[in-house]
Amino acid sequence: MKKTRILTPGPVMVPEDVLLEMARPIEHHRTAWFRDLFKQNHQLLQYLFQTKSQVITITGSGTAAAEAAIVGCCPEGHKALVVVNGKFAERWTKVCEKFNIDHTDLPIEWGHGATAADITKALDADPKIDTVICVHSETSAAAVSDIEGIGKVTRDRGAILIVDGITSVGVLPVKMDDWGVDAYITGSQKAMMLPPGLGFVAISERAWERIDSGKTPALYNDLKAYRKSLENWDVPYTPAVTLIRGLLVALKGFKERGIENIWHEASTMAKATRAATEAMGLKVFAKDPADSVTAMLLPDTIDEGALRKTMRAQHGFQIAGGQGHLKGKIIRFSHMGYLDSFDILGAIAALELTLIGQGHKVEPGAGLTAAQKVFAEAAAK
Amino acid sequence: MKKTRILTPGPVMVPEDVLLEMARPIEHHRTAWFRDLFKQNHQLLQYLFQTKSQVITITGSGTAAAEAAIVGCCPEGHKALVVVNGKFAERWTKVCEKFNIDHTDLPIEWGHGATAADITKALDADPKIDTVICVHSETSAAAVSDIEGIGKVTRDRGAILIVDGITSVGVLPVKMDDWGVDAYITGSQKAMMLPPGLGFVAISERAWERIDSGKTPALYNDLKAYRKSLENWDVPYTPAVTLIRGLLVALKGFKERGIENIWHEASTMAKATRAATEAMGLKVFAKDPADSVTAMLLPDTIDEGALRKTMRAQHGFQIAGGQGHLKGKIIRFSHMGYLDSFDILGAIAALELTLIGQGHKVEPGAGLTAAQKVFAEAAAK
Repeated sequence: MKKTRILTPGPVMVPEDVLLEMARPIEHHRTAWFRDLFKQNHQLLQYLFQTKSQVITITGSGTAAAEAAIVGCCPEGHKALVVVNGKFAERWTKVCEKFNIDHTDLPIEWGHGATAADITKALDADPKIDTVICVHSETSAAAVSDIEGIGKVTRDRGAILIVDGITSVGVLPVKMDDWGVDAYITGSQKAMMLPPGLGFVAISERAWERIDSGKTPALYNDLKAYRKSLENWDVPYTPAVTLIRGLLVALKGFKERGIENIWHEASTMAKATRAATEAMGLKVFAKDPADSVTAMLLPDTIDEGALRKTMRAQHGFQIAGGQGHLKGKIIRFSHMGYLDSFDILGAIAALELTLIGQGHKVEPGAGLTAAQKVFAEAAAK
Repeated sequence: MKKTRILTPGPVMVPEDVLLEMARPIEHHRTAWFRDLFKQNHQLLQYLFQTKSQVITITGSGTAAAEAAIVGCCPEGHKALVVVNGKFAERWTKVCEKFNIDHTDLPIEWGHGATAADITKALDADPKIDTVICVHSETSAAAVSDIEGIGKVTRDRGAILIVDGITSVGVLPVKMDDWGVDAYITGSQKAMMLPPGLGFVAISERAWERIDSGKTPALYNDLKAYRKSLENWDVPYTPAVTLIRGLLVALKGFKERGIENIWHEASTMAKATRAATEAMGLKVFAKDPADSVTAMLLPDTIDEGALRKTMRAQHGFQIAGGQGHLKGKIIRFSHMGYLDSFDILGAIAALELTLIGQGHKVEPGAGLTAAQKVFAEAAAK
């Protein structure tokens, strides 16, 4: 028997009730039915982002939503600081290049997150910077940045803060309004437990002012068109209707479970995975580890390609490898999606068997026991 | 997050491809399409039972199939021996009573299986007995009987052997023709990984002769009507068409995986569960444990009702309690259905947490490690 279990940091497993909802017959989107659906979604999206601001839904990937936020918030005459600590951060630099946005990179070693002090220093060094672009959870290096701290700095300085929350919204604590984030971005195929196909960006009043102050070099990704449609609970271009149906079921699930509980569960799964990593004789790669994804550094004796192939072909577990210079050196386990502690234990069990098969010294049950101790502690509270 | 995982010894979890097949639009059953479907199923059912005999499919539960076999094989003038070592065995005695079938019970302590010696002794004691009814895997006490050994005895004596294989066919080694079983019964909602609704009985040539020798006090459960229809790959009464569609997908899966591999996997899961049971300070109830279901004897300090409630409400695992005099004393984990080693580990993890929550002394990871050692040994072979 081989069941498929997806532990990649996107796409993720989708709950059965969401899958069934999306299998229902197609309905037209220029209808009162759609507007009602979209309105309900919007209220629940605000809960997810912990904001009173408008949340824009774009049919596209998280990259589309991020590009829309960056090009909208950086019209001519403004300058952006891009924190670069991984593969996804690099992509936002590329957006700036493509659209000729004046910007400076702030390189940070992969595995580390950005701190308030890092941002203060960079802003002090270049007074022209009035926009900060930062990835909350950098998926490639499994590291987390201090968005709360950075938000204090950007508020103090009157700068706009754009945060890539693609692997944070719905899994890590995200408090858009409290933290003063101006554009918070995410995608459907991560913590939201949906298939890929929808991007989201929540926009603060300050960010809308910035967007309205200049020309946006985009049509499909021009947020102003989405804002106008949203006034009637509508969208400017044909939306992915089945995904938007599934979205409501997924968002209702978040509300029922309670967002703080969700954050706590992910944090426990991450803690258990990190404990198991060390117990199996591997190392946690990130110095500032994110609770949405764990990167494990493999010893040189382990063939990462063969390991992932065995995990998938023999045990049915899909996990991620490394990107960029980490290719072949790390493996990554997601803590997002339709995933619980028992899936995490299963993945650890499969990893133990795979490591043993490759001649790595690990006692069967060592990783499992380390993880289970964390779950037992959490259950006792 | 709470996922539902079913580890009751029927009903069981159903594979996604089977569920999807059953969700397809209804087709009529008096068609060439149905006859082709039914013919393919029949060939694969013969593989499952390891027989060249006809396998009858009845829309009904396993009880319907068992009743059909018993009333057909026990016309007036014959006498049955009913091995009674659990709740399901008791049901076959009740069938004999209802239909005024001459019979003698052979009581065996719950948790034990019947041996060839037990049957020899009973046949020696009463020469009128020409039919033996025995449960292969007695689900209520999680015990297995030696059908291969018993088959040698019944063949030697010219007796008919009726076997309840409801929790054995498709999970434990079953070799109908080699062992000389005359009627082998099963149901869809156990090892066959389907929803409830279909009963099956494979009938040997000797059993057909017996059936044809007398009157069968039944219409719906008269096997002769099914045999006649089967000549045209058809059924006498309206069949559960969606289940029969799902059946083909499930049976193709058995063929692809290979029946010996399936038996081996179940045996490994059972061995791992028994090792975990002892490591958690519980006891394996059965003296002759079946590999299709494991019964764990709880200490008096554990409240079985509260335990199962926590397993279900908090961790999403549905397991079974005890029946009859074992109610409140044992819990049972199935090794049947759409279930793999990682589900078993998950159930053990949930049980550890639940036991700890009830104040039982168990080190987190103790059961997991014991089970994982078994899986690691199996993987090394």
